Amino acid sequence: MTQTYIEDIARHVGETIVIKGWLYNIRSSGKLIFPQIRDGSGILQCVVFKKAVPEEVWDACQTLTQESSVIVTGAVRADDRAPGGFEMDVTNLEVVSIAEPYPITPKEHGPEFLLDHRHLWIRSKLQHAILRVRHEVIRAVRDYFDSNGFILADTPIFTPAACEGTTSLFEVNYFDDEKAYLTQSGQLYNEATAAALGRAYAFGPTFRAEKSKTRRHLTEFWMVEPEVAYATLDDIMDLAEDFLCFVAARVLANRRPELETLGRDLSKLEAIQKPFPRISYDEAARMLVDGGQAFEYGGDFGAPDETFISSKFDRPVMVHRYPAAVKAFYMKPDPMDPTKALGVDVLAPEGYGEVIGGGERASDLQFLRDQIARHELPEEAFDWYLDLRKYGSVPHAGFGMGIERCVAWMCGIEHIREAIPFPRTIYRTKP
Amino acid sequence: MTQTYIEDIARHVGETIVIKGWLYNIRSSGKLIFPQIRDGSGILQCVVFKKAVPEEVWDACQTLTQESSVIVTGAVRADDRAPGGFEMDVTNLEVVSIAEPYPITPKEHGPEFLLDHRHLWIRSKLQHAILRVRHEVIRAVRDYFDSNGFILADTPIFTPAACEGTTSLFEVNYFDDEKAYLTQSGQLYNEATAAALGRAYAFGPTFRAEKSKTRRHLTEFWMVEPEVAYATLDDIMDLAEDFLCFVAARVLANRRPELETLGRDLSKLEAIQKPFPRISYDEAARMLVDGGQAFEYGGDFGAPDETFISSKFDRPVMVHRYPAAVKAFYMKPDPMDPTKALGVDVLAPEGYGEVIGGGERASDLQFLRDQIARHELPEEAFDWYLDLRKYGSVPHAGFGMGIERCVAWMCGIEHIREAIPFPRTIYRTKP
Repeated sequence: MTQTYIEDIARHVGETIVIKGWLYNIRSSGKLIFPQIRDGSGILQCVVFKKAVPEEVWDACQTLTQESSVIVTGAVRADDRAPGGFEMDVTNLEVVSIAEPYPITPKEHGPEFLLDHRHLWIRSKLQHAILRVRHEVIRAVRDYFDSNGFILADTPIFTPAACEGTTSLFEVNYFDDEKAYLTQSGQLYNEATAAALGRAYAFGPTFRAEKSKTRRHLTEFWMVEPEVAYATLDDIMDLAEDFLCFVAARVLANRRPELETLGRDLSKLEAIQKPFPRISYDEAARMLVDGGQAFEYGGDFGAPDETFISSKFDRPVMVHRYPAAVKAFYMKPDPMDPTKALGVDVLAPEGYGEVIGGGERASDLQFLRDQIARHELPEEAFDWYLDLRKYGSVPHAGFGMGIERCVAWMCGIEHIREAIPFPRTIYRTKP
Repeated sequence: MTQTYIEDIARHVGETIVIKGWLYNIRSSGKLIFPQIRDGSGILQCVVFKKAVPEEVWDACQTLTQESSVIVTGAVRADDRAPGGFEMDVTNLEVVSIAEPYPITPKEHGPEFLLDHRHLWIRSKLQHAILRVRHEVIRAVRDYFDSNGFILADTPIFTPAACEGTTSLFEVNYFDDEKAYLTQSGQLYNEATAAALGRAYAFGPTFRAEKSKTRRHLTEFWMVEPEVAYATLDDIMDLAEDFLCFVAARVLANRRPELETLGRDLSKLEAIQKPFPRISYDEAARMLVDGGQAFEYGGDFGAPDETFISSKFDRPVMVHRYPAAVKAFYMKPDPMDPTKALGVDVLAPEGYGEVIGGGERASDLQFLRDQIARHELPEEAFDWYLDLRKYGSVPHAGFGMGIERCVAWMCGIEHIREAIPFPRTIYRTKP
């Protein structure tokens, strides 16, 4: 008989089906044993009645350890008292493999222990829920851009030069002593694909060799980066706002059980509605100073600054027009005040900080040449990038969103390391 | 007035709209100028009648060079003689930027020149069509797995050890003189996520430091890898077959204009229908020998062997049960003949070779320990992988499909370097 997945069980009430999975939990009471089986799509409570099964099945049930793999046959019954609403009356149970004593127990484990056992930890209910929310976020991201005229154009991982600064580059030994660098952002390439395709986006892993050991940093993280030809800062703020509302609405619509498993306060996600407040860097700086925060005007915001600013709002806040000096070389200066860059950071509420960064890119060839010299970047590495200003330069803008920060925010979890199946941090490349 | 994209023009016949794009081509005839404008979503023929526009617009049209950026206002008219079926009667044209002489001209350029100018080459009609087919293939891949119960679980790029052999690993300088390696395949991790989620897939870039300079190799390529707990070789062959038919049907349904632009023989794609022939390695080897091919029994198939075998069929052929010695250490041996591995390669027709490789994985702990020792791999790097056999080992199977090979096949193009926006090969990390 073919396998039925637990997520489809509502369609099989009254039928005898086969479930293939692992023992999640078990308890017994005299002539009844209640194994809970997980199969990756859900958890099902099974009922083994001594008189209803062959003796060897009853005996096998006594030997089951947590995570032992089993194939269970039985009839599905709706039962409001059962977790999930269904139970199975077992007629047969085949042991595939008896698990050794499982290292992850209901007792509290430290984060290092759990990360060392990440390949097993992802079997737990909470991690399951987070991974399913991640799946939903990524699907929503792609659906949004695919249905709004964007073409996916993957940008390269191996790059010849830095995009976001040279200090946080990972160096790769390419062929014959040549070096390559792992991409920090697909943005420069997105500017080429947007000039080709009008609206393009990249979606892939990016890398930062930052020595930051904070709950917001990974050395390897996934990023989605749309770029739009002929778009301005205002256009891209509209896009970021519309996009985030779409993603949050999809997670709420499709992953409510997972959010409930995580104990997420749904009202925080329901509040993600247009319009998002838009304030300038100067206004945000004034809020910090008026609020008595230690902050020096002209600098970038630190995590505590972002938390303070976002705590004033019930939804994401967009901070625009940062000092040009703290932003990347390719940002377009504000014509009204060239000391400011036409960039925007979207700060998530609840202390999740910057989830989106972007803005309008400089389209003037000479300005960019000067910027590359001023930042002491090697111009020959950017010759192709400067070509985009020689051959049909246009205003254009885009942004990047870090997937793990968005997932952590949606889930309401504290550390982004749980928002990716196998997190990579400064001291961890394993498992 | 807001921008209209050329792909939406059919909805605006009779209206005055604004197109923002680049000059693709231009010709004139007395008091008429016909600029063709591309905006990334399509190409539109415009008509500038001297008497219908201000003098400065007429003069500006004389200055336009290929790829100059322009904003054009005019009324849309259906015209069967026009390429695409529509024309615009221009009432205004604003020059955003006059392009320098464009390096890519209608004359023949060598592949190195075009690859050096890849950031501009992607603006051409053929490259556009290929990138749109790529977009469609990737969307179809995700839709297929998302709608068949799979959860996306991204596997890490930084890995501590080899999966497909140590000779083709790229080494990264991690922190404090530590080394990490770029993933060659997410498969080992997929086995962990499949044990957690039942059905999981990874989709991301993978890396092979192979010195191969063939039309089928890139150092950086994208791969989709589904993995299914409790699946056997036969199950995964069914899955691969169903999946490829779905992808081909979607490309045919949604990207017919692009395939026509590429001159693709659509009958070749229409032939991708179930069932695919399934032959054993032994049968394939006999075909080679009977066909007079130079081939030594027991070895892996080379590209000419694959081409010969696949030329005998009008659709993909699945070759299963290769000699265990030429396959990866984790493959399950065939119980009927342990010198064979329960692996399968799907060979595409028309010389495109292996597009899918996969099979059933060994689930026995001691067998895998012996294999790791036999292959002289460091067991401590695989301790987490072996855990999957200690805690609820189950039969499981999966496969990987290289996106660029699939895209090249769908498009009917010769070299996979055109199937990715910015190809990386042994001598190329730029642009």
